[in-house]
Amino acid sequence: MSPRAAGADLPAPLPEPAVENLRLETVFGALSDPLRLEIVRRLLLESEDFDHTCGWFGFDRPKSSLTHHFRALRDAGLLRQRQYGLERRSHVRVDDLNARFPGLLDLVAAWKP
Amino acid sequence: MSPRAAGADLPAPLPEPAVENLRLETVFGALSDPLRLEIVRRLLLESEDFDHTCGWFGFDRPKSSLTHHFRALRDAGLLRQRQYGLERRSHVRVDDLNARFPGLLDLVAAWKP
Repeated sequence: MSPRAAGADLPAPLPEPAVENLRLETVFGALSDPLRLEIVRRLLLESEDFDHTCGWFGFDRPKSSLTHHFRALRDAGLLRQRQYGLERRSHVRVDDLNARFPGLLDLVAAWKP
Repeated sequence: MSPRAAGADLPAPLPEPAVENLRLETVFGALSDPLRLEIVRRLLLESEDFDHTCGWFGFDRPKSSLTHHFRALRDAGLLRQRQYGLERRSHVRVDDLNARFPGLLDLVAAWKP
């Protein structure tokens, strides 16, 4: 069992839509920005079995801007975020998205900046 | 050969991005609106082998609003439009979208308003 799946010792996820409330138009809206597509793509393709802070990405953007984009992705149901002290760490809600929108994450993974 | 495929006797398509210039983030942006998702879904699922005017959909919206939404879908590369006198008729660029973004149209077809 992965540390993430164990769950009991992780901070609770920040507020997010339940899987049954995910909406395709909202997910598309969140992914209509190249930076947000890149965030999801890199989390999908490069992350290992742990969550990442926005600093991990190395984007040359103000932290407030990144916080906004991560929040938009969480609100749309693409990312799950947990607060570790002063840091938020994120991962893609792969199982939920594959259950509701099969093929969506393949499109994101294949995207080229 | 269908009348559409024959091509020679059809008006030229209105300006649209070439298939190699389609961008996933732009397509997602155009589909982030429920009305636009519905337009593409209905053209996919209900249209036969001819193009449709925006009146065919029976939407209770001003014509100027519909014209705007169809134009946004054409600019993003989702629809091809041809001018027949005073009317524009539209169909989904199925082959182009399947070539560039496999699975995208399945997501749209499965969408529920």
